[in-house]
Amino acid sequence: MEKRPLILLTNDDGITAPGLRTLIKVMNRVGEVVVVAPDSPQSGMGHAITVNDTLYCKKEYIDDGPQTEYSTSGTPADCVKLAVNEILKRKPDLCVSGINHGSNASINVIYSGTMSAAVEAGIEGIPSIGFSIVDYNWNANFEKCEKYVEIIAKNVLEKSKGKNTILNVNFPKIDKADYKGIKICRQASSYWKETFDKRKNPNGRNYYWLTGKFINLDKGKDTDQWALSNGYISIVPVKYDMTSYDKIDEISKWNLK
Amino acid sequence: MEKRPLILLTNDDGITAPGLRTLIKVMNRVGEVVVVAPDSPQSGMGHAITVNDTLYCKKEYIDDGPQTEYSTSGTPADCVKLAVNEILKRKPDLCVSGINHGSNASINVIYSGTMSAAVEAGIEGIPSIGFSIVDYNWNANFEKCEKYVEIIAKNVLEKSKGKNTILNVNFPKIDKADYKGIKICRQASSYWKETFDKRKNPNGRNYYWLTGKFINLDKGKDTDQWALSNGYISIVPVKYDMTSYDKIDEISKWNLK
Repeated sequence: MEKRPLILLTNDDGITAPGLRTLIKVMNRVGEVVVVAPDSPQSGMGHAITVNDTLYCKKEYIDDGPQTEYSTSGTPADCVKLAVNEILKRKPDLCVSGINHGSNASINVIYSGTMSAAVEAGIEGIPSIGFSIVDYNWNANFEKCEKYVEIIAKNVLEKSKGKNTILNVNFPKIDKADYKGIKICRQASSYWKETFDKRKNPNGRNYYWLTGKFINLDKGKDTDQWALSNGYISIVPVKYDMTSYDKIDEISKWNLK
Repeated sequence: MEKRPLILLTNDDGITAPGLRTLIKVMNRVGEVVVVAPDSPQSGMGHAITVNDTLYCKKEYIDDGPQTEYSTSGTPADCVKLAVNEILKRKPDLCVSGINHGSNASINVIYSGTMSAAVEAGIEGIPSIGFSIVDYNWNANFEKCEKYVEIIAKNVLEKSKGKNTILNVNFPKIDKADYKGIKICRQASSYWKETFDKRKNPNGRNYYWLTGKFINLDKGKDTDQWALSNGYISIVPVKYDMTSYDKIDEISKWNLK
């Protein structure tokens, strides 16, 4: 590449999260990095955008790296919109989101702020990657991810110019020396079985905490859940056309008059 | 049906919104209605869920209809989770969300709180419908929708038992006597071209309002945008598997080592 690629970074854990700081370190080796990330954690925000409130944006100086950084009061999807339309001088060559502290595999893609930023970039015609690690620990070991983040980002930059590639990449939690490899997968069919933890506040009013148990219904060996359970990094190519094409014929036969 | 079906209603404009009140009126004719809806507007919330905050839930008495109603401090997706796991005695036969004040056709499905509630129900194995009207007016005329809401809901109840049918139904804005009919469609390929309205607050600090222009790139006559532009009600069957299957082969050939 003649010119250094322009790379937009964001996340949903907030601008100071270790996962994002790892991403910045790696992506500084790949191109010119601009960070536009939430000023506070935005986990579970899905593809939320701020339509009924104002957005703030502030330049940040967090470490002495070569990247430029901004924090915003918005969601991950807001960050991408603000970056592309207000902050960046030109359309970025790549958008990278993460590294998320926690899995965004299978059904989690729907609830994920990290992935919503990647999808938003894809909608705007920017190749994008969301990275996540299956480890909810704030001090998770991101070191082993670094090599693969760089390889995957370079591949997308090289092979997805002008294509709307969106990748959902998850790293398994491993104890061993290295990952077993990379699997290109489909999203496993799964869901969260919720339990609400019901409590009383000091004024005697009931409130709830949402908790849940992850249920994987999918025994397929071509899924992201299988790859992660077996020590592989999973990559699911993602699209934002949510049409269930196989149902169009069936519903066309209904008596809708 | 021997027993009256149990129908869960929700929305993203809040429990007092005229669109939801219309839905309640119609669905009271179809089954036993329980409303669990946000206590304030949640537009643009996408598939957000409340993971870092508490949830409140309160019984409401808004009109003298036969339905049971609860408001919550959560998002539309939270409402469905709370209803299914805490409030309802059994799994509902149908979940209906809306009628949203504003279009959820094409790319709007991604940002839509209304549709996230329907998708959440689908994930939990409950047939569901999100209804929206292409009219942002709080006092939009919902009367013409009523007949079709009933027809579509009855069809889903009858034909989708045990299937994870999720429908995204949009009503066009019409001046004439009635809609031209119903089209079963795919989601049009489109996006929002944002502009940020930059202002200064009384303390001199910059802030932004997100505004945008809708761009439809898709000339297909099989899309929801085409149907709506031509006076038809659009129905898009929706799924939550976001895998881009046609890209799996291509990416498998990349050099990811």
